[in-house]
Amino acid sequence: MKSLHESSIIIDGLNTSRFERTVFEDMRRGGITAANCTVAYWENFEKTVDNIAQMKKQIRDNSEMLTLIRNTEDILRAKKEKRVGVILGFQNTHAFEDNLGYIEAFADMGVRVAQLCYNTQNLVGTGCYERDGGLSGFGREVIAEMNRVGIMVDLSHVGAKTSSEAIAASTKPVCYSHCLPSGLKEHPRNKSDEQLKEIADAGGFVGVTMFAPFLKRGIEATVDDYIEAIDYVVNLVGEDVVGIGTDFTQGYSVDFFDRITHDKGRYRRLTNFGQVINPEGIRTIGEFPNLTAAMERAGWSEGRIRKIMGENWVRVFREVWGA
Amino acid sequence: MKSLHESSIIIDGLNTSRFERTVFEDMRRGGITAANCTVAYWENFEKTVDNIAQMKKQIRDNSEMLTLIRNTEDILRAKKEKRVGVILGFQNTHAFEDNLGYIEAFADMGVRVAQLCYNTQNLVGTGCYERDGGLSGFGREVIAEMNRVGIMVDLSHVGAKTSSEAIAASTKPVCYSHCLPSGLKEHPRNKSDEQLKEIADAGGFVGVTMFAPFLKRGIEATVDDYIEAIDYVVNLVGEDVVGIGTDFTQGYSVDFFDRITHDKGRYRRLTNFGQVINPEGIRTIGEFPNLTAAMERAGWSEGRIRKIMGENWVRVFREVWGA
Repeated sequence: MKSLHESSIIIDGLNTSRFERTVFEDMRRGGITAANCTVAYWENFEKTVDNIAQMKKQIRDNSEMLTLIRNTEDILRAKKEKRVGVILGFQNTHAFEDNLGYIEAFADMGVRVAQLCYNTQNLVGTGCYERDGGLSGFGREVIAEMNRVGIMVDLSHVGAKTSSEAIAASTKPVCYSHCLPSGLKEHPRNKSDEQLKEIADAGGFVGVTMFAPFLKRGIEATVDDYIEAIDYVVNLVGEDVVGIGTDFTQGYSVDFFDRITHDKGRYRRLTNFGQVINPEGIRTIGEFPNLTAAMERAGWSEGRIRKIMGENWVRVFREVWGA
Repeated sequence: MKSLHESSIIIDGLNTSRFERTVFEDMRRGGITAANCTVAYWENFEKTVDNIAQMKKQIRDNSEMLTLIRNTEDILRAKKEKRVGVILGFQNTHAFEDNLGYIEAFADMGVRVAQLCYNTQNLVGTGCYERDGGLSGFGREVIAEMNRVGIMVDLSHVGAKTSSEAIAASTKPVCYSHCLPSGLKEHPRNKSDEQLKEIADAGGFVGVTMFAPFLKRGIEATVDDYIEAIDYVVNLVGEDVVGIGTDFTQGYSVDFFDRITHDKGRYRRLTNFGQVINPEGIRTIGEFPNLTAAMERAGWSEGRIRKIMGENWVRVFREVWGA
């Protein structure tokens, strides 16, 4: 008999690993149905098109286990075909440059989620690691265009003021694809109870991450601490608008963390994560079934587990993507 | 005997005309020693390098009347040789993109003045036509690099908060290269008495423009209204830190004004200038001698006239450029 994990749709709302065959194999081992896979941080339009082309080549080269996700039907098909679905996602709208026309171009290429800002200020707004002046006029135009073409607005690394204004401006649900509650630990990247309620009240979505520096017990955490954090968010906003967004960085080492903690990957330092070790029990993507098992151990109902592990993400993606 | 105008160094702190032979001929007719000529508004790095190359080709092709200005010695040489000096200037740091290394590259190409923001938000700060969240962290790094390589920080179209913080952050004098006092007319582009004093107190500089939409009497203005505006600024900050910055747009028509009143030259409308007619008496660059004559008519001393018409700019340029 299939385990609950095996029979569920498993969506990872944010995976930012060094994507190569070994990582994809581990995603299959972990039973991932589809993951929002980061293909842009600080790259400009041209370099991001390169990144997308490289990801698509990997999908072709490993087509026995990978498939590109363009709509939610593709997610259901991936599940049936036992392949891992790749959702193309950005952690920054820097790749849009100053050109609203690039947004539809990226949607055509398959991009389905884009975080407005990555840690610092861009043309759209400001990230969570510097003073935030809010959503710019151009940012409003960007959101309108993302709404139109069906790219989900992600606010995880976005500053509080820009986030609030983006939530209000978007006509489609927006998400924190990978965040933790500051109710459990204060950190510039974590979201307050008010922020979590604000996005949920607006029809938005919260993916909960397990990134150790933002967890209460840091690198001492286990998969059960991750469950506690998800539970905290569910208790605040209900079980229908919460999902998983691990922020796995598998395959990367210290150079990567050095890069992502500096503005534009190379200028001033914004934060220091210290050592990054994923919670015990879910150190690698292949251990994903332990997450479902931990939810069962915590006494969650099968219905809640299926929703949190993937069904909720599929529903909100359908609302944003239109199919 | 030479007129005062002919014997003076005449600097235009901002000329944004459609640069072609007829305009350069008019600059010579007007007795311009050197002008800050805009070669970038919304262009990215690559397109701006093109613009600079085109300007340099024009300087070569018209070398009997034009010369490139790299330092203040070049300005004195231009005066002696009766050629018009072209100072390469930007109205936006958009061309720096996300790359601090481009700043020295542009300095190497001869760029000597750059306005931080053009009307709206960029990576550095925010312009004067939208809510201004202030100077970004990257903006501080940009100013430090501009200070190091000798590119003057211009704040004319920059928002009030970003301007204040840039004035405080810069270790070299900064300027409003082309502005008018809001004491004579309220307008988002005009500067309050406090702002004018703030920049002067910090060792900075004010170039006074004659752009009709910002003048008290608009398109009814004459060269004497322009003198009144300069006088207003001199009375506030003294005669040593004030100069001319016409904002001539010679050779352009309605398409140009349409472009520069929209974000990024093509998105949402930011303002509407209505009809643009330069003040009577100084409708064209060739009429520049009328400006000196109007100062004489107003009873200004020869010393003051020489300073305002150019000597002050030369002094502050030397402080910023290092030579």
